[in-house]
Amino acid sequence: MNGDRPLVLISNDDGYHAKGINALVDMVSPLAQVIVCAPESARSGFGCAFSATTPLRLFHRRHREREGVEVWSCDGTPVDCVKLALHEIVPRRPDLIIGGINHGDNASVNTHYSGTMGVVMEGCMKYIPSVAFSLCDHDDDADFEPLRPYVVSITKRLLAEGLPRGICLNVNFPVLDTFTTYKGVKVCRMAFGSWVNEIDCRRHLRGYDYYWMVGNYQNDEPDAEDTDGWALRHGYVAITPTRMDVTAYEVMDQIKVFETIKQ
Amino acid sequence: MNGDRPLVLISNDDGYHAKGINALVDMVSPLAQVIVCAPESARSGFGCAFSATTPLRLFHRRHREREGVEVWSCDGTPVDCVKLALHEIVPRRPDLIIGGINHGDNASVNTHYSGTMGVVMEGCMKYIPSVAFSLCDHDDDADFEPLRPYVVSITKRLLAEGLPRGICLNVNFPVLDTFTTYKGVKVCRMAFGSWVNEIDCRRHLRGYDYYWMVGNYQNDEPDAEDTDGWALRHGYVAITPTRMDVTAYEVMDQIKVFETIKQ
Repeated sequence: MNGDRPLVLISNDDGYHAKGINALVDMVSPLAQVIVCAPESARSGFGCAFSATTPLRLFHRRHREREGVEVWSCDGTPVDCVKLALHEIVPRRPDLIIGGINHGDNASVNTHYSGTMGVVMEGCMKYIPSVAFSLCDHDDDADFEPLRPYVVSITKRLLAEGLPRGICLNVNFPVLDTFTTYKGVKVCRMAFGSWVNEIDCRRHLRGYDYYWMVGNYQNDEPDAEDTDGWALRHGYVAITPTRMDVTAYEVMDQIKVFETIKQ
Repeated sequence: MNGDRPLVLISNDDGYHAKGINALVDMVSPLAQVIVCAPESARSGFGCAFSATTPLRLFHRRHREREGVEVWSCDGTPVDCVKLALHEIVPRRPDLIIGGINHGDNASVNTHYSGTMGVVMEGCMKYIPSVAFSLCDHDDDADFEPLRPYVVSITKRLLAEGLPRGICLNVNFPVLDTFTTYKGVKVCRMAFGSWVNEIDCRRHLRGYDYYWMVGNYQNDEPDAEDTDGWALRHGYVAITPTRMDVTAYEVMDQIKVFETIKQ
């Protein structure tokens, strides 16, 4: 391997054998040395969770490797994969961390639940430029090929220019079944949205209730043209710059009244 | 129960039997009807994770109940507890959701990993006023009593006035071993900080390596007096207003160049 090539760490939340992560490796490996460290199996909905109380293992997946691409899996969360890769696998600090390509969108409030964004927030917290790619299609065999020019361009630019400290990118792609080509790229804010009807209650034959987390996503501001939700519904690739610092600066003055509380 | 009393939903990530959540119930139950729905066992580091692929159960914990306090546990994550409680347990939309009192701090970047903040972000995503309380002491038998006047005042104010949509509060308390009383309350921003030395690698007798997630927290801006990290080290209660919308508005212009990418 050429030590002068940039180094990219790739992870996801769908597992190391998912079609999306392998499509991503295929798109990025001409541009950089690639190391993959991804979950053993699907870890959707894990957000920034890490394994505080259970031991973890790493597995070298040589059958998935090719020239310039090293592949590992881990039995923990997406964040565990990044932490373990950074401490135990990479030969040096990566130039870029990429999460994805996720099977399913990570726009709006799904940012908080997303293991793909967990990968990227972890990179951001380590001050490494980081980007998540997600396609609004949960199909195991989704077609990632239309994303290639965007993934390649964005990756090249991030390798060349990096990102400001504490900022990462959340990139979501609509499905091309309703559009023949993407209309373009929009830099967006995160839409406010809600999950409703989230619980499916079933009766077990032993006489107790159990629950599945399901639900429907509802865009709470469908007409806001500056949001990721609007961009995706209108055929645009949505790029949402995302912050590690979640301080609500805009309400600090309003909250100052709490400083008058006495013991 | 008096239907005119405000309704407060309480959860945590240390489990329903932890001392911290029971101290919180004790402080809040004179002010409101309280419903507890918290994890069966400790779920630290779960962030906003929810159980997308495993079924969940709820358990009515009558032995923990007292006048005006209903107690449930759930075998899922802190976020699962909130989602299940909102759909299956509460008689109406709560007026306030409280996470904690956590055994251990949730300041700075720990916000992202914290299951206690997962509870509160979930409340925030449901547009319900939400606040997390955490004490910088991991001891199972930590002394929560010095927090009482602050917890009571903050809870009363939030019940009376609510919070802006999409904003929640992250309240952290230093330990009173180095200070005799709290110096006061400070409204803060989240400090930039990093976890280092996060992996402890061990050799199993069967001949493979396994890993524990550990690490030391390092404050990357210890002299910044407007941060939660500074406030906590100097004996202040730190209140950090926290946003659901993680868009990095300040870099949108800089990122606009990505809109020129063509297919």
